[in-house]
Amino acid sequence: MIDPLKQIRFEDMKTLATGAAILGTGGGGDPYRGRLIAELAIAEHGPIRVVQPRELADDDLVVPMWNIGAPVIGIERIEKGDEGVRALRALEEFLGQKAVALSPVEIGGSNSTMPLRVASMTGLPVVDCDGMGRAYPEVQMITPTLFGIPASPAVLTDTAGNAILLQTVDNLQMERIARAVCVQLGGRSAMAGYPMSGRQIKRAMIPGTLSLAFHLGRALEEAQTGQDDPIDAILKVTRGFRLFSGKIVDVNRRLEKGWARGYFDVENQGKTVRVDFQNEFLIARELGRGGRVLCAAPDLIMSVDSHTGEPITTEMLRYGYRVTLLGMPCDPRWRTPEGIALGGAGYFGYEEAYVPVETLVKWLIANG
Amino acid sequence: MIDPLKQIRFEDMKTLATGAAILGTGGGGDPYRGRLIAELAIAEHGPIRVVQPRELADDDLVVPMWNIGAPVIGIERIEKGDEGVRALRALEEFLGQKAVALSPVEIGGSNSTMPLRVASMTGLPVVDCDGMGRAYPEVQMITPTLFGIPASPAVLTDTAGNAILLQTVDNLQMERIARAVCVQLGGRSAMAGYPMSGRQIKRAMIPGTLSLAFHLGRALEEAQTGQDDPIDAILKVTRGFRLFSGKIVDVNRRLEKGWARGYFDVENQGKTVRVDFQNEFLIARELGRGGRVLCAAPDLIMSVDSHTGEPITTEMLRYGYRVTLLGMPCDPRWRTPEGIALGGAGYFGYEEAYVPVETLVKWLIANG
Repeated sequence: MIDPLKQIRFEDMKTLATGAAILGTGGGGDPYRGRLIAELAIAEHGPIRVVQPRELADDDLVVPMWNIGAPVIGIERIEKGDEGVRALRALEEFLGQKAVALSPVEIGGSNSTMPLRVASMTGLPVVDCDGMGRAYPEVQMITPTLFGIPASPAVLTDTAGNAILLQTVDNLQMERIARAVCVQLGGRSAMAGYPMSGRQIKRAMIPGTLSLAFHLGRALEEAQTGQDDPIDAILKVTRGFRLFSGKIVDVNRRLEKGWARGYFDVENQGKTVRVDFQNEFLIARELGRGGRVLCAAPDLIMSVDSHTGEPITTEMLRYGYRVTLLGMPCDPRWRTPEGIALGGAGYFGYEEAYVPVETLVKWLIANG
Repeated sequence: MIDPLKQIRFEDMKTLATGAAILGTGGGGDPYRGRLIAELAIAEHGPIRVVQPRELADDDLVVPMWNIGAPVIGIERIEKGDEGVRALRALEEFLGQKAVALSPVEIGGSNSTMPLRVASMTGLPVVDCDGMGRAYPEVQMITPTLFGIPASPAVLTDTAGNAILLQTVDNLQMERIARAVCVQLGGRSAMAGYPMSGRQIKRAMIPGTLSLAFHLGRALEEAQTGQDDPIDAILKVTRGFRLFSGKIVDVNRRLEKGWARGYFDVENQGKTVRVDFQNEFLIARELGRGGRVLCAAPDLIMSVDSHTGEPITTEMLRYGYRVTLLGMPCDPRWRTPEGIALGGAGYFGYEEAYVPVETLVKWLIANG
């Protein structure tokens, strides 16, 4: 059992951002930027209180917050700083109710820390949970969708001062419309949506994932400074598997409709594994030889530096990196037929039926 | 002086829609559909009261309403009927104030009648004015922009039930974001925006244009049933000019980013005139021979059936039609440097300096 986080201090941010970036499966934004932004806010406004879902009253209003768009743009374009607070206030005003707490929607390099900045600026606590237990590229891909909880109303804001409030008939329409708005706003926007009651948070969100990210980051740091293998430390906390190690020999990444889409190839001793991504890593497959799948969404594909165990996100990928690909079983909610339909590789057009990563790894070991 | 309209009855709709479609310079939606929709509402809810801008109290809230998107889609896709009312109510709720009256933003086949349906359904009057004295393809192209009046807040609704509230930092951003949303909503949406006080309506809108459209439609009908030439009747009311008559020999029309874009060619005795459009007709030029401009926005290019004088809108254009192209001086507000920058052909990428249509016609007569 992991000790739950009670607060997030300045000195916790590096640890938290690193662990979150590993769980972010390549996406969820840049961890260094996510860390700096939260650190800046904490330095000015003080530590952030963390509450557990069970501590929420049933009718508390919790507002999940995130950045939508391509992480690459998140690195290249400087924010004004008030984008998140403006989105929160616009949503509160529309709802006629004040938020009691904020939450991340996903665990990832900067999207698990984005609500921390807003929490620090507003004095609100964050709930120790998220809606994925990983990161996903599209707005509707969140466990609340599986529980019939609407993304509406939601607000997008940008640095220029635009604010767009969306009420859509379903969460897929929210994705389509919010994405089109985001592209017009320059490819990356702050977003507040999926407003939930405390009761809904307890039912539909994945608890304890901020604590998990922090614990993972700490385990990695301890291994890095001690005698343990950093990758073994990651596998222990995530209950994950080694899939493949090698050198990145090709990166194909393009900005398309506000996403970073493409693939990268990892080569070792004549064998090549290709990982396709849309912000996040979607599927890892051997090239040639029947193209066996090593791991596919909704399970987590994680890419880390083979030497240090540090996460390598989509926008960091480059030729020559020595990486190790890891696989981790997703939250069981994603393994239901509805979960696989919502967040499985099949949604992105891959034809292979979903097989849990632990089964795929058994096959790999059995067949060499 | 034209008698101002006091109310719009079922039997007035054909006349009004026809006159509005002529002034719509090819755009503003299909007049037949616009007429039927308003007739249906009036048959159910009764006639619509028309008020003059001067009758408004200074702090009355007036909400302009229109359909955004390609007129072609407006014909092909059936509306539910409550799109406009839902947009109005969402805007009122956000403003915390009830509308006292509605108004068109433009004069055109269905966009001058769109607010009539909502007026009839809600019992609100419409103001005898619009923001163009013609039709234009983009949201910011409206005289209130020249007076610094924001398009925000504005609401888009669709048939499925989505509602998007936009607050943008300027009216050009409103155009860009609303257009992207509109495309996601299927290419055509109801829209309420440019909320104005009675004082602002009096200052920034063009008064009397619903009455002008009705008067134009009536003059045309009288000519059609009497001995007068229908086109002469149009020219008398609009103070316009004959530019060219001939047969449509080419129509190039494509749906692009939610607009109907393209051109059509009119030929007569070896001479061809090409009219470019983006929903509305932008520029009419001779092909070859130095390509003289006959008329360009912001002045109105009107295309009517050479025999009956009936308006031919962008979506009705087809090979073989005998058409007469007419030019009409725009409202003087569009002839200021700011007006020409906002609504002139130059905005759409044409390099020719703006010359008033009455000057162009003098040159044509002088040079044959």
